Amino acid sequence: MSLKPKVLVIGSGGVGSVTALSLWWRQRLEVTLIVRSDYELIKAKGIEFHSCSYGHIEGWQPHNLSSSVSDAARDYGPFDYVVLTTKNIPDGPIRCEDIVRDAITTGVTTLILVQNGIGIEKAMYAAFPEITVLSGVQLIGSSYENGVVYHRGADNLSIGDFASKENRSSKSDEVMKRFVEIYQNDDGLNEIKIDNDPQASRWKKLVYNAAFNATSALAGVDNTRCQIAAGTDSLIRPAMREIIKIAKSEGVVIQPDVMDVFCHLGDGMFYTPSMGIDRKKGQLMEIEVILGNPLATARANGVETPVLDTLYALLRMVQLDTMEKRGQISIDEKDYAGNSDDYQRIFNDKRHERLG
Amino acid sequence: MSLKPKVLVIGSGGVGSVTALSLWWRQRLEVTLIVRSDYELIKAKGIEFHSCSYGHIEGWQPHNLSSSVSDAARDYGPFDYVVLTTKNIPDGPIRCEDIVRDAITTGVTTLILVQNGIGIEKAMYAAFPEITVLSGVQLIGSSYENGVVYHRGADNLSIGDFASKENRSSKSDEVMKRFVEIYQNDDGLNEIKIDNDPQASRWKKLVYNAAFNATSALAGVDNTRCQIAAGTDSLIRPAMREIIKIAKSEGVVIQPDVMDVFCHLGDGMFYTPSMGIDRKKGQLMEIEVILGNPLATARANGVETPVLDTLYALLRMVQLDTMEKRGQISIDEKDYAGNSDDYQRIFNDKRHERLG
Repeated sequence: MSLKPKVLVIGSGGVGSVTALSLWWRQRLEVTLIVRSDYELIKAKGIEFHSCSYGHIEGWQPHNLSSSVSDAARDYGPFDYVVLTTKNIPDGPIRCEDIVRDAITTGVTTLILVQNGIGIEKAMYAAFPEITVLSGVQLIGSSYENGVVYHRGADNLSIGDFASKENRSSKSDEVMKRFVEIYQNDDGLNEIKIDNDPQASRWKKLVYNAAFNATSALAGVDNTRCQIAAGTDSLIRPAMREIIKIAKSEGVVIQPDVMDVFCHLGDGMFYTPSMGIDRKKGQLMEIEVILGNPLATARANGVETPVLDTLYALLRMVQLDTMEKRGQISIDEKDYAGNSDDYQRIFNDKRHERLG
Repeated sequence: MSLKPKVLVIGSGGVGSVTALSLWWRQRLEVTLIVRSDYELIKAKGIEFHSCSYGHIEGWQPHNLSSSVSDAARDYGPFDYVVLTTKNIPDGPIRCEDIVRDAITTGVTTLILVQNGIGIEKAMYAAFPEITVLSGVQLIGSSYENGVVYHRGADNLSIGDFASKENRSSKSDEVMKRFVEIYQNDDGLNEIKIDNDPQASRWKKLVYNAAFNATSALAGVDNTRCQIAAGTDSLIRPAMREIIKIAKSEGVVIQPDVMDVFCHLGDGMFYTPSMGIDRKKGQLMEIEVILGNPLATARANGVETPVLDTLYALLRMVQLDTMEKRGQISIDEKDYAGNSDDYQRIFNDKRHERLG
């Protein structure tokens, strides 16, 4: 590791932008930020922050700005840390392991996934067997639009090694401590801590995400309206209970009182979670990491999950519709003239053909 | 009953229009049709039919046309039969018993509900304790728009007394036979039969409706795309099995092979059922008669229905959103600042206040 570590932040939404700013703040490291669709805008005008921690900042630039990971790797690598803050949509056109690939240098890079969901480390282990992959759970409240970031809830990051204690690299503790040192700013501007059981934290966060994200996306309304219409006993809590059951089958015990906390977290706020916003905007949703992976675990462990199965099936239908409308797949009606028992297989075969 | 019976048809969608035409065809009775929003159009130009049975007909008029049930009752009543073909949405602004009220003459009128769902007779018995209420199950394929009816699937109606044999009026058989006589046209132009166990027929039809209507509405795609995305084992069949279980708890035995029939009924057709169309159009959906009432029966009989509970909760959220967007309810965010456990009660109280 160089004396001035190099950190690549991928994803310049609310979370990615504040992460880059937090890292840049004390000038103890070199921050490279990947900006894709708004690259020209940010290159010309920088990012504007309205931040609850850092105040109003205009024209902010990281040390290095790139429009692609391969450009960044060529111009500013190798990176000590790669922080991935994009959405994780393995059923979408780009897989996360392909997003980060060019920025990974075995023996040098530690990968930090600041993303939702369960099982997201597995594709990374398969693609990069030698590197340390850290979980990042970020409790921030932030949003990005057209070069402007609204940062309303403090940057509060927990990191931990996805691998169990016996499977961790000998350098795991060191790379985590080093990242905490370079990330933590003075005067409580942000908060970072090491989490020794990140899988438990992820399952716990999933109790909220699986229930509220799926419900809001399918109903098309914010969390408060969901509760006005149907309370929490009809669907939200039954969905939460199923996540708690799956977690338990993995040895993760979640106290049932977290359900109360989560059901009241947004009291009176009329907040729409990310999956609800994605559906409204016609964007792909994180249905595999938030529902598909936990349900695969449920099947493997013999846990029954009729509520989550129902939500997941509906979300797969919505996702197919979104992919079709975005031109990422096409459904030729004449391919589906025969027996509907075969439709899913036909679809998967055609998709596989196309994606290779 | 007069020698030339008087029949009132309420609802001039695809089903109502073809019903009125079928009844009018042999001129054995006097047909009055209620047309609400398109009254001026139909009054001026009549209805145009593209009918698989009756051919292409332009400028068709029933014997009497009215824009309201009260006008029809005053001008053309009393009616021997009132055939109600509107959607049945007890949580909407107009209840079906209020729609038909002015056309009901006790001792004269038989009411025929050509509508989907379970338990729809109960509100009618409460409002009109003395009359015979018949179930109509219509297997027609038809649609209406701007005065034009496309009639693609033959008019095939089963009628039967909602009341169990021991509770039927002594005139029940006679009024059903008489209706069959006046409804049946020659040369197989239509088909009508008496169904001695209409509750069983309704539960059976509900196996299809509860599963496919709810799924299509929530996913926002047609039935075929639902199956392409997620097959039928993930949601459609589990939902169907729960309806079969509820029916069984009511003494109605449905053979499981109807699930296969229903899952293949629309093979290759890319058909969107009514609830899916309603959601796309931002219209209220028949969620109470298709899901709410069967689930009330499930609760009363101790049947567990996690899949249908999930679908119903989601649909109630969508319905609330639709009501709000249509201005039928309003949600003042400041009323929902407190504890979310109270939200449903607050909403119901406010709604009750407004509806009286």
